[in-house]
Amino acid sequence: MKLISFLYPDDQPGFGIVSGDGVVDLTPRFAGRATGLRGLLAAGLLAEARATATAPVDFPLAGLRLLPVIPDPDKIICVGLNYRDHVAETGRTVTEKPALFVRFAGSQVGHGAPLVRPHVSTDFDYEGELAVVIGTAGRHIAPAQALAHVAGYACYNEGSIRDWQRHTSQFLAGKSFAGTGGFGPWLVTADEIPDPSTLTLETRLNGQMVQHTTTDLMITPVPALIAYISTILPLLPGDVIVSGTPGGVGMKRTPPLWMKPGDVAEVEISGIGILRNPVVQED
Amino acid sequence: MKLISFLYPDDQPGFGIVSGDGVVDLTPRFAGRATGLRGLLAAGLLAEARATATAPVDFPLAGLRLLPVIPDPDKIICVGLNYRDHVAETGRTVTEKPALFVRFAGSQVGHGAPLVRPHVSTDFDYEGELAVVIGTAGRHIAPAQALAHVAGYACYNEGSIRDWQRHTSQFLAGKSFAGTGGFGPWLVTADEIPDPSTLTLETRLNGQMVQHTTTDLMITPVPALIAYISTILPLLPGDVIVSGTPGGVGMKRTPPLWMKPGDVAEVEISGIGILRNPVVQED
Repeated sequence: MKLISFLYPDDQPGFGIVSGDGVVDLTPRFAGRATGLRGLLAAGLLAEARATATAPVDFPLAGLRLLPVIPDPDKIICVGLNYRDHVAETGRTVTEKPALFVRFAGSQVGHGAPLVRPHVSTDFDYEGELAVVIGTAGRHIAPAQALAHVAGYACYNEGSIRDWQRHTSQFLAGKSFAGTGGFGPWLVTADEIPDPSTLTLETRLNGQMVQHTTTDLMITPVPALIAYISTILPLLPGDVIVSGTPGGVGMKRTPPLWMKPGDVAEVEISGIGILRNPVVQED
Repeated sequence: MKLISFLYPDDQPGFGIVSGDGVVDLTPRFAGRATGLRGLLAAGLLAEARATATAPVDFPLAGLRLLPVIPDPDKIICVGLNYRDHVAETGRTVTEKPALFVRFAGSQVGHGAPLVRPHVSTDFDYEGELAVVIGTAGRHIAPAQALAHVAGYACYNEGSIRDWQRHTSQFLAGKSFAGTGGFGPWLVTADEIPDPSTLTLETRLNGQMVQHTTTDLMITPVPALIAYISTILPLLPGDVIVSGTPGGVGMKRTPPLWMKPGDVAEVEISGIGILRNPVVQED
């Protein structure tokens, strides 16, 4: 099942199921019980949503303005340096534990919406990643139980402003510029991806492949990420773990390859689909 | 004016004004218009709240269970290495730009509530800091206009699990353990603190002074922090900037001085008051 968050023509948010070329609108069906996909997960209503997946579609998917898969997560936790080829190209060394940092929800856009290059920098880099969305809350989750806490998966373009990322030792400044993170196109529920270490991820800029990996190459795999993070604090329904990018980032090319206005960036993951975003300049 | 967030006896959240030994309860007065202090700020109702500050108190302050000043901020942005004596004790060098990292809202507790030492570490350190709460949204805020965007100030104990903080280059893992950040006791509105660089901050552990500074010693002062952060993304009402800790942290003492169950930690800032939290072991 593919779940989306979207905007109605009157700019109100909605959520639904993608069914063929159309959308089964869950918004009215769960009115008063769940606001948005995060609320649906928090209320434990995913199974009930699934029962409506074969209902007649309410409107076409084409033309719908998609929001980030989870527009309002409590937490977005990103993993740095989680593929050896990316660690190598950055000149760093592999750490025993995952390097965690944060994006803010306000830095995200949905599939089809523009990624925004800010005024203050031209060093706007792509990072194709697998996003993991938590479905069931938990703390001190053991790796063997971790995948049972996952609602599903999506594509993420963890867009980074590299010069700001390197202002200090801490990545945050380059990682949360408004409109720099693509998250979509939809949430593919975990029943369709029983093992997230079996996927192929590819990033393309203007149709040219710039990153390619299989997810079995993650240094800290998804179950261990969930175990580590949930030692720190509870994971909640709708929380997002952005699991790291492979080698091939634009910063480490000669000359560097930056995203610029007019470009189109894509992140494709097998079993999920294609997240596609045009790039624009900040107003 | 001093504003608090609290829990009613039935565990429902409320917010109000401290008036002498009592509380003017704002919750019913703003029902349907503002949920919590963040909502009050977002709705631009601070002036209307001020008009009720001289109303008869609704109940005593003593015995009230206080929440973090803003229990549900959109963003909590912390500043590392913002006092020269702390930079020196960590063996690092001063950076031109502020080192930003994040805490999650779920890591916070209010005045009087216990700080929680987790199972996985005994390296639980204090960090007394001045917290800045945004009142008016803005992006690309100029330093000269920055203080006009501040609703007020509070004390923060930015409790840190040092061994986890040092797992990798990124501080987050040590900075968001559940129940490790004290935020209180209240928000003192900015009219009472026209210049946040004129304050004195002291941290005490079991009554012994362990940190002492004046806030004019910040490397990046509050207006410049607001300008820098708002270049990255919009600051919203209720957002919290935790502006950095001075020298004297427990990690850099010989032997190290850790917070342990049974201890009492205090952060006192002139013009604001005392944030006091006992320390307990994770259940």
